[in-house]
Amino acid sequence: MTRLKFYYDLMSQPCRALYILLKINKIPFEPCLVNLRKGEQYADFFKNQISRFQKVPVLHDKDFKLTENVAILRYLTREFQIDDHWYPKDSKKQARVDEYLEWQHNNTRLNCTLYFIHAYLNPRLMGKEVKPEELAAYKRNMEETLNKIEDLWLGQGTKYLAGDVISYADILAACELEQPLMAGFNPSDGRPKMADWLQRVKLETKPFYDEANVIVDKVIAKQKQT
Amino acid sequence: MTRLKFYYDLMSQPCRALYILLKINKIPFEPCLVNLRKGEQYADFFKNQISRFQKVPVLHDKDFKLTENVAILRYLTREFQIDDHWYPKDSKKQARVDEYLEWQHNNTRLNCTLYFIHAYLNPRLMGKEVKPEELAAYKRNMEETLNKIEDLWLGQGTKYLAGDVISYADILAACELEQPLMAGFNPSDGRPKMADWLQRVKLETKPFYDEANVIVDKVIAKQKQT
Repeated sequence: MTRLKFYYDLMSQPCRALYILLKINKIPFEPCLVNLRKGEQYADFFKNQISRFQKVPVLHDKDFKLTENVAILRYLTREFQIDDHWYPKDSKKQARVDEYLEWQHNNTRLNCTLYFIHAYLNPRLMGKEVKPEELAAYKRNMEETLNKIEDLWLGQGTKYLAGDVISYADILAACELEQPLMAGFNPSDGRPKMADWLQRVKLETKPFYDEANVIVDKVIAKQKQT
Repeated sequence: MTRLKFYYDLMSQPCRALYILLKINKIPFEPCLVNLRKGEQYADFFKNQISRFQKVPVLHDKDFKLTENVAILRYLTREFQIDDHWYPKDSKKQARVDEYLEWQHNNTRLNCTLYFIHAYLNPRLMGKEVKPEELAAYKRNMEETLNKIEDLWLGQGTKYLAGDVISYADILAACELEQPLMAGFNPSDGRPKMADWLQRVKLETKPFYDEANVIVDKVIAKQKQT
């Protein structure tokens, strides 16, 4: 029996990021799929047994239950063997990774998610109308975030977000950027540093990046046909 | 000469939280005030010399420049003597504190800030009108977050957010809850666990909590008169 149970849905960006991290570091876990589209996280069983927050990802380490992607990452690095570059022990290098992991919440995560919800989820899957001026505002906020990634983060001249080696910050950021792609918007268009960086991240996380994004890629392929 | 330069404005919640942490742990720093209302963070000097992100808080440890409140907290705990309970070294206890510190970004922080901006900053200081239905939506989101703090966090029966001892999570949360107070909304009304907990946090962080909130308290006092 494995020690870890990992509750996830590959439609969720932070779930994909943790999935890649676990796989690439060969940390064994029992995969526990939670179907967000069916609302399985709202069931009483989920609330009482899995997590009172009713969200994924959730990690169970025996009877220790933990939520929040970044908290889970840090816990895993203390409890398991994870290659140092993903989350460096060196104080200053770790601070650089933390800086992105904290920054992204109200930037990459918030703005790419809001655009995805209003450009794709609501109109395409929920049949909810979105006012064009509201969608334009969400797009503007997202583009502001994308420009900050291009200019303030990658503009420092490093190969990755937090330095010259790949870290968990890069996995998480790349996974977030798949959301606008599903809505037919390519974040790398007109952002050459981002395009190069994304290529590097995907190459360094092979084959797990593609494995984690298998559903996302189907949505993107379908989107291109319409 | 002190090793640390701390750039802050006490109108900013995360600045207040770090200020309290630094003071209570007797970590010496050079205080560098940044007047956000005057837009000092947008000056070229700030962008080029202090932080390219043009936000506070910023920490300079000699030539190492770091932003993001939670990243700064974690860096400080590695580099300085900080009482363990503020950010425990024990893996599971630390994970509990991290869980709140990550959760708050798109809950306490986002929703209390948005309410503060639309209920106070924009109409009272900027002369910007806010549509009543928009303000109602911001209030609803904030109340949902406040109910989660009452029921999901404090409802676990612990004295503090992440266990039975006070941690940085409590300082940060309390500082965020001052924002709606400035807009004339008391988060503790009808939330008895929150009211008791806030009392405990303020008592345990005396006199630095009051010191950090000196400007905030003036705004709240003025608000009550109107």
